[in-house]
Amino acid sequence: MKKHNYSAGPCILPQEVFEKASQAILDFNNSGLSILEISHRSKDFVAVMDEARALVLELLGLEGKGYQALFLQGGASLEFLMIPYNLMKIEGKAAYLDTGTWASGAIKEAKPFGETVIVASSKESNYTFIPKDYSIPADADYFHCTSNNTIFGTQMKSFPETNVPVVCDMSSDIFSRTLDFSKFDIIYAGAQKNMGPAGTTLVVVKEEVLGKSGRTIPNILNYEQHIAKESMYNTPPVFAVYTSLLTLQWLKNKGGIAAIEKENESKAALLYAEIDRNSLFNGVVATEDRSFMNATFTLKNIEHQETFDALWKAAGISGINGHRSVGGYRASMYNALPIESVQVLVDVMKEFENKIIK
Amino acid sequence: MKKHNYSAGPCILPQEVFEKASQAILDFNNSGLSILEISHRSKDFVAVMDEARALVLELLGLEGKGYQALFLQGGASLEFLMIPYNLMKIEGKAAYLDTGTWASGAIKEAKPFGETVIVASSKESNYTFIPKDYSIPADADYFHCTSNNTIFGTQMKSFPETNVPVVCDMSSDIFSRTLDFSKFDIIYAGAQKNMGPAGTTLVVVKEEVLGKSGRTIPNILNYEQHIAKESMYNTPPVFAVYTSLLTLQWLKNKGGIAAIEKENESKAALLYAEIDRNSLFNGVVATEDRSFMNATFTLKNIEHQETFDALWKAAGISGINGHRSVGGYRASMYNALPIESVQVLVDVMKEFENKIIK
Repeated sequence: MKKHNYSAGPCILPQEVFEKASQAILDFNNSGLSILEISHRSKDFVAVMDEARALVLELLGLEGKGYQALFLQGGASLEFLMIPYNLMKIEGKAAYLDTGTWASGAIKEAKPFGETVIVASSKESNYTFIPKDYSIPADADYFHCTSNNTIFGTQMKSFPETNVPVVCDMSSDIFSRTLDFSKFDIIYAGAQKNMGPAGTTLVVVKEEVLGKSGRTIPNILNYEQHIAKESMYNTPPVFAVYTSLLTLQWLKNKGGIAAIEKENESKAALLYAEIDRNSLFNGVVATEDRSFMNATFTLKNIEHQETFDALWKAAGISGINGHRSVGGYRASMYNALPIESVQVLVDVMKEFENKIIK
Repeated sequence: MKKHNYSAGPCILPQEVFEKASQAILDFNNSGLSILEISHRSKDFVAVMDEARALVLELLGLEGKGYQALFLQGGASLEFLMIPYNLMKIEGKAAYLDTGTWASGAIKEAKPFGETVIVASSKESNYTFIPKDYSIPADADYFHCTSNNTIFGTQMKSFPETNVPVVCDMSSDIFSRTLDFSKFDIIYAGAQKNMGPAGTTLVVVKEEVLGKSGRTIPNILNYEQHIAKESMYNTPPVFAVYTSLLTLQWLKNKGGIAAIEKENESKAALLYAEIDRNSLFNGVVATEDRSFMNATFTLKNIEHQETFDALWKAAGISGINGHRSVGGYRASMYNALPIESVQVLVDVMKEFENKIIK
C-alpha cells in the first residue's frame, strides 16, 4: 500500500521523479552507464548541471537579473556559516530575525564573526508567531530571515523593506509560492523538501553582494569560487542534482510556481478548515502566520491520542507526529503531496470526531 | 552495451549495488516509501546509518580502538578546512606532504590557520614520484598526507613513523588495500571511488585527538558535534549513505579488504605488465610509486593517438583519457572494476601494437 507521506523532510517527491531516478541508476540517458558511475565532468552531467542551474533562475523569475544558482553540499547548516563568511565585514554587523530552531542555528554560527543583532524573536511564546514590528539597522551588512519554520508551522507572509542585503533561508518553502524573488540577495535551501533528495543545497546569489566582506574566505566556503567553477568547484553530489533537475522539470511542466501555489493553497485551506471546524483539535500557531507547508495542531484532550493515532495509521498516513519541541501533530504538505492525501487525513479527522463524540 | 568504465571518479560501483539502489528508490525495505522520501530520523534510516558507521570500523579493523566513523557532506575539499579547524592550535603548526593537486588544495586551505610546513614535495617533477626522505617537525599539531594521487597515478606504499597525529586523505584508495589503519588519527575520503556515489564523505576519527585546538570551531565543521549527534548533526545525504552501505556490505561479503586487495593486485599487475611490455607505451610515474588504483601511461608516439582511441572506444571502454595536467591515459581500476574489463584494455593495447608494428 502506497503511503500518504506527510514527512517533514526528506519528504515526498513526484512519483514520476522516483521512476526516472530509479531508471537512471540502471542506465542513464542510454549511455550504458549508471548515473552513479559517470564522471561529473562528462558531457551528459555538465548538461544536467547547466540545465538545473538555469531552470532554477527561470522558475524564480531571476533570469538576466545578476543572479547565479549553485548546487552545493552541507545543507542549510553549512550556509549558516557561509553567509557570515561571505557577507559580514570585519568588525561588521548582521541582523537576524529569530523565528525558530533554524533561525537560532544561523545566529549561533554567525556570532563569532561580529555583532549579531536579533531584530525580533518569538522565542518567549515558543515561536508560535512571526514577529512583525521591528527595524533593521541601516548599517547592518545583511538581514537574515527564515521564510518558513518547519518545526513550528509558521511562515512569513511578507518581508521587510530594507536597504541592506536580504538573505533568506527558504529550505522548506522554496518553489511553493510566488514571491518577488528579486527582493532577496541570497536565497538558500536544502533540497529535501520541494526540490529533491537530501544531499544538495541550492544557493541563489546576486553576484553584486559578494566580494565585499574583506575576509579571507576558505575556498570551499567562498561563493565566488563556486560561481567561477560553475558549481563544480569540487565533485558535486551528482545524483542529488540530477534528481533535483527531474523535480524542477516536473514543476515547470505543471505550470511553474504559480500553478503549484494554487494547489498548495487548496491543500492548506482544506486542512486548516478541518482543524478549525473539528471540535477535537487546536491549531498551534497564530492564524495569520500559518504555514502552507507545515500545519501544526494538537488534540484538545490528550486522552484521545491512541484512538486518533490508530485511525490515521490504518488509513496509510505516515509522518504526522509533531516535532518533539512542539508535540502534537504536524502535517507537511509539500509540492508533491497530492490533495487526495490531504483529503484522506481530513476524512480521518472527521471519522475520529464521530467516533469520540457519537 | 555495458561499458568498461575506467572513470577516475565518480566511478563504477558493483552491479548489485546499482540494482538494489534502483529498487530502493521505488520501494525501500517494503515500506511503501522511496528511500528518497523517508525521514532521516525514521527507524529504518537510523538503522542504515548505524550499520554503515559500524561496518566502516569493522572493515578497517578499528572496532573498539577509540575511533568514530562519520558520514558527512562537502567532499574531501571541505575536510581540507575541517582538519585545521579541529586540529591546528592557535599560532600552531601543521606538516603537509605535497604529492599533487589534492595535497596542494589541502595546504592552501590550512595556510590561514597557522604555519604550514611542507615537509617535501614532488611538484618540480610534476608529481611523478612520492617523496620519501623527509622529517616531520616534532612540534607539529599534525602531519597530513594523501595516500593515493588520482590525477598523477602515484600511491604511498608506506607511511612515516611519527609521534604527531597523522591525518590521511584516502579518497581514492580507501578499502582497496590492507594497512594498519590504527596508525592514522584521522582518515577521510570522498565516497565516490570505492565506497559509494558522490555526495557523502567518510571521516574516521580517533576521538582522543579532538578538543585540543583551542579554537572556536563552527558547529557544522566540528567533529565533536558530529560525533555527539551520531553523524546526524543535520540532515545527512540519505541516499548516498544508503548506497555506501550497500557497497560496504558487498565488500564484506567478498571477504573484506584482504580479499579485494588480491583482486586489485591482479588487476594492476595485468595492466602494468602490458604498459611495460608494449613497445608503444610509457608509464608516467616512478615504478615503485605506481598506484594500484590509477595507472597513468602515454603513447611514445603521439601520432598514433587517433588509432588507439578508435580501438578502445570500439571495445566499449570509457573514461581512460588522462587528466589535463598530465595528458595521455589514466586507467582507474577501483574495487568494483572487474578484471575482465582490464583484460579488454590489455587486449586492445596488444591489438594496437600489432596494427602499428605489423
